[in-house]
Amino acid sequence: MKFEIKDRDAAGRLCKFTTKHGTVTTPNLLPVINPNKMLITPKEMRKLFGTEMIITNSYIIKKDKNLREKAIKKGIHQLIDFDGPIMTDSGTFQSYVYGDIKLDPLEIVEFQKNIGSDVGTILDVFGKPDQTKTEAEKGVKETLKRARTSVEIKGEMALACTVQGSTYPDIREKCAKNLSKIDADFFPIGGVVPLMENQRYTDLARVIISSKKGLDPSKPVHLFGAGHPLVFPLAVALGCDFFDSSAYVKYANGGRMIFSGGTEKLEELDELPCNCPVCSKYLASELKKLDEKDRVLQIAKHNLYISFAEIKNIRKAIKQGNLWELVERRANENPYLLEAMIELRKTDNKEWLERLEPISKNKAMFYTGNHTIHRPIIHRCHNRLLNRYQTLFKDTIVFPEGNKPYSSYYAEQIQQISKKRDDVNILIDSNLGPVPLELDEMYPFAQSVFPEVTDTETEYEVTKIFKEFTKKRNIVCWKGNKTLNELKSSKKRNFDRDFMRISAVVDMQFGKNASKKLFDGGVKIIKSKKTGKIRNIYCDDEHILSMRATDGLFTLKSNGAIRLHDFFKFPRLRVIVDKDAVPFVKEGKSVFSKFVKDCDPELRPFDECLIVDGKDKLLAVGRCLLNREEMLAFSYGIAAKTREGL
Amino acid sequence: MKFEIKDRDAAGRLCKFTTKHGTVTTPNLLPVINPNKMLITPKEMRKLFGTEMIITNSYIIKKDKNLREKAIKKGIHQLIDFDGPIMTDSGTFQSYVYGDIKLDPLEIVEFQKNIGSDVGTILDVFGKPDQTKTEAEKGVKETLKRARTSVEIKGEMALACTVQGSTYPDIREKCAKNLSKIDADFFPIGGVVPLMENQRYTDLARVIISSKKGLDPSKPVHLFGAGHPLVFPLAVALGCDFFDSSAYVKYANGGRMIFSGGTEKLEELDELPCNCPVCSKYLASELKKLDEKDRVLQIAKHNLYISFAEIKNIRKAIKQGNLWELVERRANENPYLLEAMIELRKTDNKEWLERLEPISKNKAMFYTGNHTIHRPIIHRCHNRLLNRYQTLFKDTIVFPEGNKPYSSYYAEQIQQISKKRDDVNILIDSNLGPVPLELDEMYPFAQSVFPEVTDTETEYEVTKIFKEFTKKRNIVCWKGNKTLNELKSSKKRNFDRDFMRISAVVDMQFGKNASKKLFDGGVKIIKSKKTGKIRNIYCDDEHILSMRATDGLFTLKSNGAIRLHDFFKFPRLRVIVDKDAVPFVKEGKSVFSKFVKDCDPELRPFDECLIVDGKDKLLAVGRCLLNREEMLAFSYGIAAKTREGL
Repeated sequence: MKFEIKDRDAAGRLCKFTTKHGTVTTPNLLPVINPNKMLITPKEMRKLFGTEMIITNSYIIKKDKNLREKAIKKGIHQLIDFDGPIMTDSGTFQSYVYGDIKLDPLEIVEFQKNIGSDVGTILDVFGKPDQTKTEAEKGVKETLKRARTSVEIKGEMALACTVQGSTYPDIREKCAKNLSKIDADFFPIGGVVPLMENQRYTDLARVIISSKKGLDPSKPVHLFGAGHPLVFPLAVALGCDFFDSSAYVKYANGGRMIFSGGTEKLEELDELPCNCPVCSKYLASELKKLDEKDRVLQIAKHNLYISFAEIKNIRKAIKQGNLWELVERRANENPYLLEAMIELRKTDNKEWLERLEPISKNKAMFYTGNHTIHRPIIHRCHNRLLNRYQTLFKDTIVFPEGNKPYSSYYAEQIQQISKKRDDVNILIDSNLGPVPLELDEMYPFAQSVFPEVTDTETEYEVTKIFKEFTKKRNIVCWKGNKTLNELKSSKKRNFDRDFMRISAVVDMQFGKNASKKLFDGGVKIIKSKKTGKIRNIYCDDEHILSMRATDGLFTLKSNGAIRLHDFFKFPRLRVIVDKDAVPFVKEGKSVFSKFVKDCDPELRPFDECLIVDGKDKLLAVGRCLLNREEMLAFSYGIAAKTREGL
Repeated sequence: MKFEIKDRDAAGRLCKFTTKHGTVTTPNLLPVINPNKMLITPKEMRKLFGTEMIITNSYIIKKDKNLREKAIKKGIHQLIDFDGPIMTDSGTFQSYVYGDIKLDPLEIVEFQKNIGSDVGTILDVFGKPDQTKTEAEKGVKETLKRARTSVEIKGEMALACTVQGSTYPDIREKCAKNLSKIDADFFPIGGVVPLMENQRYTDLARVIISSKKGLDPSKPVHLFGAGHPLVFPLAVALGCDFFDSSAYVKYANGGRMIFSGGTEKLEELDELPCNCPVCSKYLASELKKLDEKDRVLQIAKHNLYISFAEIKNIRKAIKQGNLWELVERRANENPYLLEAMIELRKTDNKEWLERLEPISKNKAMFYTGNHTIHRPIIHRCHNRLLNRYQTLFKDTIVFPEGNKPYSSYYAEQIQQISKKRDDVNILIDSNLGPVPLELDEMYPFAQSVFPEVTDTETEYEVTKIFKEFTKKRNIVCWKGNKTLNELKSSKKRNFDRDFMRISAVVDMQFGKNASKKLFDGGVKIIKSKKTGKIRNIYCDDEHILSMRATDGLFTLKSNGAIRLHDFFKFPRLRVIVDKDAVPFVKEGKSVFSKFVKDCDPELRPFDECLIVDGKDKLLAVGRCLLNREEMLAFSYGIAAKTREGL
């Protein structure tokens, strides 16, 4: 089994999961196949919806003499007639639904192995929501015990060890941590079906976050029993990789059609508000008139069309870097899901999310309402403005929000100011917080779309951070034009705003005072002839930085890396690699996770990094794909892309 | 031509539009057909997307000798090979795009008539956004002049007279009013394409609202050139009935795929995040590899699948009564559309929307974020609480938000209170404002889903109305339980909370003090044996009211109507019908709009009403489908459904 990150956004990731029956892209949905009654065969699913992997229940197979014998003889893949990866569940959910069922925890693992399941599941103890803490702890203890004994016998099969712990975040996290210590391959989050059935999405978010906090980040995480696409975007944004759905058939049996934001009863619809092949083929009246068996089949197909489209939509959002937008938009479909978003704002959750949040994204950030201002990327920006950004001058002029980039929009006023004096900071009171003029091309300040008027909550948050940021600053002019005439002249210092810009960006990106070291010498700024934008920075004739046009952030050149390596103490900005990797990295080969010995905990996904050996000798400069926890956990895939070996 | 309202929500409506080539349901989308180059034929569109009506350009046909001759000889329906309704545009947009084109305003109308167009369009003067007020007025003057001369020659053809007036609301409204005075059949809102191209949705909303305010509400309204589904929900909620799309092919030519919330370039997609038949058939890679002609065709089909699904989605929302939810959710897709929502809150817009807002809906109201609290239905509820609801007692106990209905949730506390005293009001400090306990089953107080925690803006608005509502009330206990023990006992009055309930609902529904008259006598309240809920009210043994279980509002019985007729002065609650209709109405036949002479301006869609003759003799009791402006304007369809003739 192999699991590697290919792309990422929020705490979500786009991965390749490889089994001996093939590779699957995550996030993904595993349709639940009832071996007794296949409404749609896995082969047909692959053809219609692009289904890559399915899940079926080993307990049901084992219970039925006929199925059991066939499965043992020919294997699960022949039984189900599917040559892609197959996951099996163990009967835990059945024990929750039907009460105690006779099942030996090791026997069922053994059975799954024997029938050739790609991913088998332990028989964990289902932790019901709101059970007492003692009950939850007892269940987790037993689950852990079974997990430990089960991994011993798993053989070649990947083993899924389920996180339990009811609705207690501390027990969930502890269970996850303990499961991560054993040789488990796959982590379902269990006990969540009753939460979803009762739309307890705040509890669901809390359960996912606490489980994820404790889990080894290098293993796939599966939200057990999540089949309604409504929860997919948030669950992925919090780090879930797999879902499984029996909802498609359960809902179809009840005449209910799934949509990305909810469910509709066919009987209540006069028209089918959908364009899937089923809804394009039938009118509502025709669908209603089909005989029951066919109607259930058609609705089940519709449900899977919708569900897989949402999975693709989520993968697109990860690639484009607008997963938070999708999460917020879908949350608007359901008040309780909207409420769950508030859970993410809690200080420790926000900080956990910030550690996983990429430094930059492929698409601009879009405002979707009052939740946008609470996103981890904005939290980070505000923090860095308070802790990394340094003001050069005593006095500050404040401009109101305007078109981006602000330096073009306010070009006239800036010129007017510079005629009188150059020793003032210019600050934009923007709709996402204070933006120093020098940072106006940096992600996300330039790459964000906020309307002129937002909402009271956003205004409140923005005012709060603005006040904090300007607390110790002397505001001499407010809101530009109106009072610019009153600006007193001072001795001109002919200060270079380009230099201010590169210094400010470097400090925000690499850390406080990074600019002092990087630009300690004769600085030359090369601009693009075409766009007039800063492209390359030389210091004492050494090429140290390039500015990316897309996000206004710097890529670090080796000469820049040497300076930062010199300035920032170990382990800041470092990725420390094993000696075996040294020659490859020096040649410019990328750093694979398994060779990472340690890493600066402050590095974030897509941050520039210094690649060093165990003795802190600088080997190369590159860009992280993972953060520290991930680099240390993953055995497969790239941890940092090397740009230049030294 | 016939146009009648069948259902409604927000300021939007679901109508039947009948021409001699058949009946069309609105809201609807007319794909633009280029007679020179039909990428997809209208017949195929009907089969694939359920297309009912199309639009083509008479100027293009007239310009081309071949097309012109064929059109004149065989008619437009044969030329296009479509037997459904066909609308023709006049060349106005071409004159905007290509500058002055030689075209005689009357000649082009004559031509459209001659080729048998179902709906022809005048040659109006395109009012560009941001032209000067003088230019806008001049253009409107010319448009009006042409409209007046064009209607003279329209013959059997329905004539579309376009509202212009650039971005000036006063000019738009005046233009609309003047067009409504002449014999026009159909009202496009023109000059909006540049607004949509530049995402100026606030201006677009302003233009639609001001046009609609001036327009005869009985005629269909078409948002000219609106082809991206992103604007459909808001435009429908503001009263637009038709859209036309050449976007499907224009976008397809540029390799752009339309989605309900925006657009994606095919080349930037690794997967197609959609389940329409095109996206279900092709992988992104396969679609990219098709030869250009086929690729454009497939994308155009995708674009129409998406667009028509959104139209169906909107119609579903109108029927379910959750169009505002859809509008707010779609607005979250685009920051500028979200900003446009703020335009709706302006006092006069809010009041305009309130007059069109139904009294009750089929589905519960869902919170979607900070825009929900500004909906017209909530505005109305708050107003009625301040102006119609009357407190019985001096002292008030306030409970926090709880599960609905509150009287069950707080049953224990209420009993506890009643042991001490009965002469207190109980008020819920709910997430949508103050809710007196007696109103806890009334729409939308019970039929609304708000999360426990909302957002700062909602909290602010709710606090404001709560303060205003409780200004003159004496709050003796706050937030229930905690301080209930401190409640001082007073002389028990054994007050009947059921009586309080029916009085409060009646006042909210029919007007201040309505309860005094209705319940002046011996009141008997009959409850459902099954649910324990109030069902029927008798006063002095006369059945006067029934309470609907679905929305907690009353239906008025004839004996109740007599009492209200006696109490409320003319024209309150009245629909006044022509003498020709009197015998029919008395027999229980519904009131058709064309027989309505006047109506209480305070009646709202779905309000209970007293149907009277010109001498204010009570004929029947019924339920309005339309408000006053609409009843007076419509010539077709039902104005009020009669329930009981007297």
